[in-house]
Amino acid sequence: MAVYTDVTAEELTGFLAGYELGELLSYKGIAEGVENSNFLVHTSAGTYILTLYEKRVAARDLPFFLGLMQHLASRGITCPLPIKNKQGEALGKVAGRPAALISFLDGLWLRRPSAVHCAGLGEALAKLHLAGLDFDGKRRNTLSVDGWRPLFEHCRDRVNEVQLSLRDLIETELAALERDWPRGLPQGVIHADLFPDNVFFLGDNLSGMIDFYFACNDALAYDVAICLNAWCFEADHSYNVTKGRALLQNYARVRPLGDDEVAAMPRLARGAALRFLLTRLVDWFNVPPGALVRPKDPMEYFRKLRFHQQVTSVSDYGIGA
Amino acid sequence: MAVYTDVTAEELTGFLAGYELGELLSYKGIAEGVENSNFLVHTSAGTYILTLYEKRVAARDLPFFLGLMQHLASRGITCPLPIKNKQGEALGKVAGRPAALISFLDGLWLRRPSAVHCAGLGEALAKLHLAGLDFDGKRRNTLSVDGWRPLFEHCRDRVNEVQLSLRDLIETELAALERDWPRGLPQGVIHADLFPDNVFFLGDNLSGMIDFYFACNDALAYDVAICLNAWCFEADHSYNVTKGRALLQNYARVRPLGDDEVAAMPRLARGAALRFLLTRLVDWFNVPPGALVRPKDPMEYFRKLRFHQQVTSVSDYGIGA
Repeated sequence: MAVYTDVTAEELTGFLAGYELGELLSYKGIAEGVENSNFLVHTSAGTYILTLYEKRVAARDLPFFLGLMQHLASRGITCPLPIKNKQGEALGKVAGRPAALISFLDGLWLRRPSAVHCAGLGEALAKLHLAGLDFDGKRRNTLSVDGWRPLFEHCRDRVNEVQLSLRDLIETELAALERDWPRGLPQGVIHADLFPDNVFFLGDNLSGMIDFYFACNDALAYDVAICLNAWCFEADHSYNVTKGRALLQNYARVRPLGDDEVAAMPRLARGAALRFLLTRLVDWFNVPPGALVRPKDPMEYFRKLRFHQQVTSVSDYGIGA
Repeated sequence: MAVYTDVTAEELTGFLAGYELGELLSYKGIAEGVENSNFLVHTSAGTYILTLYEKRVAARDLPFFLGLMQHLASRGITCPLPIKNKQGEALGKVAGRPAALISFLDGLWLRRPSAVHCAGLGEALAKLHLAGLDFDGKRRNTLSVDGWRPLFEHCRDRVNEVQLSLRDLIETELAALERDWPRGLPQGVIHADLFPDNVFFLGDNLSGMIDFYFACNDALAYDVAICLNAWCFEADHSYNVTKGRALLQNYARVRPLGDDEVAAMPRLARGAALRFLLTRLVDWFNVPPGALVRPKDPMEYFRKLRFHQQVTSVSDYGIGA
């Protein structure tokens, strides 16, 4: 739940005067996103999302994120389109915060996506990767292998409060991945956070992908590994190979995976699990006083990591099976 | 900020299957209302507000509130219209909570309403009062004079933490109002909470009134007194007689105030100020741990009460001046 910054009708009316979007008819703060403040804005021209970027999003990265969404939308990807003001700028300021208006996408996110939805996701992810190939913005993935040890340092003294000997298990895994992390895989723009709550469906059809604020340049197959973690496990933390196969096969139909990418998938999946385990642990120990949001369970990703550690063949994910 | 109860796409789709509102296209939890959970719901038939009633609203009162909105809307008052399902019922259940869908109203609420807006409010309030006269639902005002002493008992031991000698001042005022509270004034359905955030404008035109969850039967002039408190003071707590006059004159054009109502106005205004002072004090001392909402400043209403205590003539409010 968000809305950290209050916006008055007078301020928003003033901001919208810089756009050609007609009259402001209504706006509501929406309980969405944990990094930014979001408002659903209704004008005589249509419905938009106004995002105020709070301090967790670096202002210097905003041109990358907004430029990427513009680029992808122009390539036919159903992602939010940043709206330009009369000066041709997509980035403005509201209530002292960097702010942007983006187009509103219909659709619902699913708590329990089925294999059909995983298939749709795989196809959309591959199209996203292809569409991003000629985007010339660059942003390093600060949450890839080089970023994990600093995260671990932030929480290592307390992780055993969550589970006994968790510290040693992470230490061992981290050292292994730092040593063996796949290098030289095909690179491109990845979403890096394509969880079910960032993907909208209407019925069984994928209608949109949102929240590009972790997007960066990295191995494309790493994005696939993140999605395997986020979409293909059941509530009991068991891996559903039918969902995994649906995701991977439909991805590969649009963008075939290279042998190097297939071979690297178990390590990429372990890395993705460790990345979310670590960020969730950091969040777990840093709940701000007064927070309404309960932090997500870090151990969900520990259990996923355990699964990946036991994978003996890539066919366990549904590849080539 | 609200949204206490989470609603999944699957649950909402199931709920909407009972209505003739087409396909669910999107929904967002909105940061509005402090008593209930609210969602902005977009279907192929239009835009609606879904309210889940949390425990602070008594379930037995819901038929009164929903029936009143239906009644007022049928009389041309721009208030939300509860939508009936295929069984003809406006009250249903979502996620284990009593729930209702109501029509969505365009408009913006103003932090700093001007005299023009106060004039519009006066006219709309009088129309609301007239339209409610033949509504046959009944609900006692639990926050009128009989309810104030119990509120005071809830916080009397701590009120001097807010301001020295506040306890004695409230005690004296409460005793005076209990003795002299105006009786026998024209009765009807009052909104009882018509603050600026419950009134929408498009430009200078009032476009809607919302949040009828304090509505009850009481003296109509008491509703006017609540609005004088809520709309006609400046940020420095000074009373703006131009705004008061605009509100009162435009009210009286639609529903003339009787001599008894005019004479009672200073006491009604004192009572309204004491009512909000007391509920704010109770809220002040009962902030739930983890609350994101900062309670409203009770002393704002203490200063308004001080103004009303010093009024020597009803013309001080702008009546008959």
